[in-house]
Amino acid sequence: MTIMRDEILEQAGIVARLAADPEPFRAAAREARASGARFVLYAARGTSDNAAVYGKYLATILAGLPAGLAVPSAATVYGAAIDFRDCLVVGISQSGETLDVAEYLAQARDAGAFTLAVTNDAGSLLARSAHRVLATGAGVERAVAATKTYTSQLAALAAFWAAWLDDDELAAALAGDVPAAMEAALATEDAVRAVAARLSHADRLIVAGRGFNYATALETALKIKETCYLAAMPFSAADLRHGPIAMVEPQYPVLVLAPAGATRAGMLELQRELHRRGAETYVVADTATVVADATAVVELPRPLPEALSPLAAVIPGQLLALHLSLERGLDPDRPRGLSKVTRTY
Amino acid sequence: MTIMRDEILEQAGIVARLAADPEPFRAAAREARASGARFVLYAARGTSDNAAVYGKYLATILAGLPAGLAVPSAATVYGAAIDFRDCLVVGISQSGETLDVAEYLAQARDAGAFTLAVTNDAGSLLARSAHRVLATGAGVERAVAATKTYTSQLAALAAFWAAWLDDDELAAALAGDVPAAMEAALATEDAVRAVAARLSHADRLIVAGRGFNYATALETALKIKETCYLAAMPFSAADLRHGPIAMVEPQYPVLVLAPAGATRAGMLELQRELHRRGAETYVVADTATVVADATAVVELPRPLPEALSPLAAVIPGQLLALHLSLERGLDPDRPRGLSKVTRTY
Repeated sequence: MTIMRDEILEQAGIVARLAADPEPFRAAAREARASGARFVLYAARGTSDNAAVYGKYLATILAGLPAGLAVPSAATVYGAAIDFRDCLVVGISQSGETLDVAEYLAQARDAGAFTLAVTNDAGSLLARSAHRVLATGAGVERAVAATKTYTSQLAALAAFWAAWLDDDELAAALAGDVPAAMEAALATEDAVRAVAARLSHADRLIVAGRGFNYATALETALKIKETCYLAAMPFSAADLRHGPIAMVEPQYPVLVLAPAGATRAGMLELQRELHRRGAETYVVADTATVVADATAVVELPRPLPEALSPLAAVIPGQLLALHLSLERGLDPDRPRGLSKVTRTY
Repeated sequence: MTIMRDEILEQAGIVARLAADPEPFRAAAREARASGARFVLYAARGTSDNAAVYGKYLATILAGLPAGLAVPSAATVYGAAIDFRDCLVVGISQSGETLDVAEYLAQARDAGAFTLAVTNDAGSLLARSAHRVLATGAGVERAVAATKTYTSQLAALAAFWAAWLDDDELAAALAGDVPAAMEAALATEDAVRAVAARLSHADRLIVAGRGFNYATALETALKIKETCYLAAMPFSAADLRHGPIAMVEPQYPVLVLAPAGATRAGMLELQRELHRRGAETYVVADTATVVADATAVVELPRPLPEALSPLAAVIPGQLLALHLSLERGLDPDRPRGLSKVTRTY
């Protein structure tokens, strides 16, 4: 049908293969720990930047390390000399050819950081700029809109932090439960197709998530922007409430991400508030979750531990980008005017 | 006319007063330096989060310190125990009553960080949670959409980092050139009113900025979302090129922020690319900047050093939110369903 759909279907297998060999992640974690790193910075652009947000939550919440997203232009545009002592700097790029990210990583390495490259091309510029490479092994991605490389980046980050924490349970879940839940999430396709039909003439969409699935909200909105040219706006639930919720008028479509975990209750509360404002709410939740008054619920058949849930919870969003694009008569494989590698300085 | 306009007009005076007394910022910088901090985290929500982005660029580019935005939910939702040694944690909140930000700051203080509260209420919960308070002194803000408290937060952050760096030139510019440039920027109101008239029926808008003025793009888009209910989407120029530029079709309105500085050439290049795609480009630039083929140019009469330019460059955006709201028959002072203090846990 489309290359994008083929690549969405490949994802569970890619993650299973990546997680089946934890040794590269253990070796990287041992070296990173030995470096004395206690601050974490991620450098990335586009889809990879959304994976970086997930990595920031893993580092902060699971490993208890202060973590943030880097300012790549500090190195390339402003020539800043940054004190990188005790830093772990992780560059993420599918192609490994995003110049400002590679340049930032090289400067961080030269200034004392321990550096990791998360990339789908172990021979790329980014890979050569880092102490160690975490290869995502997703195979060649032919669709312009990244799907399988995004989830493989999430998997690489989860595998790395599981190794850092010596958390065998997390590593085992990544190798077993996660691919199973990702495979099962493909069963949401019919429900997603129905949502796409309802949204076929929408010109705007809010996507709300929180905690680990804030990254899922960012990535879902980005995918819909790229393939459907829709004004899809991602928000953390907390920030949405802080002002932009004023936009929501009757019939405003909002996608609410509410997989199981510490943030679910708050997300369902937000859904009720949006419903009271007359919004059309589309909720992604685990099968067992009771959702009242939603316009539609997309049920994830297999719940995951919250820290790993973004690997499956993004799949309905990817499928929505695909089917909404087709519904609107567009070609999801070839967004207008985009190429696969973006060179930003 | 409107409270929002009155408060926009107050801004230059507030910044002049704040910068006229650098001693509180010097004292805070001395203590922060003495604490040994070399990693910076900002915790904030909404408009204050956009001020935090500016603060992140100041810390990274001027002071050469790795800096990021915190994950407030790590403390309040996930109960993470974070290793805050050698961290400077800055909480920013107009009211000082944003609960998750205050809670995050209190936990950071208890876990060894040096903590600062940037707030308009020196007796607030946030102020009581920090080692030291940087009062923004903007007076009571009566409009729901924050304007003068945003620029006063930028000024407090610039004053703090100028003190950290012992940079008397930067401090002097903040006290003199900046209020003058902010006052002069009010002269853009007629040009902005004309842009508002053109955008009166727009249902979406891209706002692009880079470097220090990425914060300006975020804040301009947020203000327009809150007061005009428009799907206003902020992007760093680099991220826009990385995928979402596919959205841009003929007549797509894009606000391009291109004040003088290291990022201007790249922003003007982006503007030309958007023009080739048929977009309507509205460019905010200094008077001396040559802009070709724009739909309209909003000229800032007095250029500033790039690191301080966000204080004046946001004013056309604030005025656009105001006039576009009026143009659409809305009340900018009372966005529907918003209150001044948002309690997020």
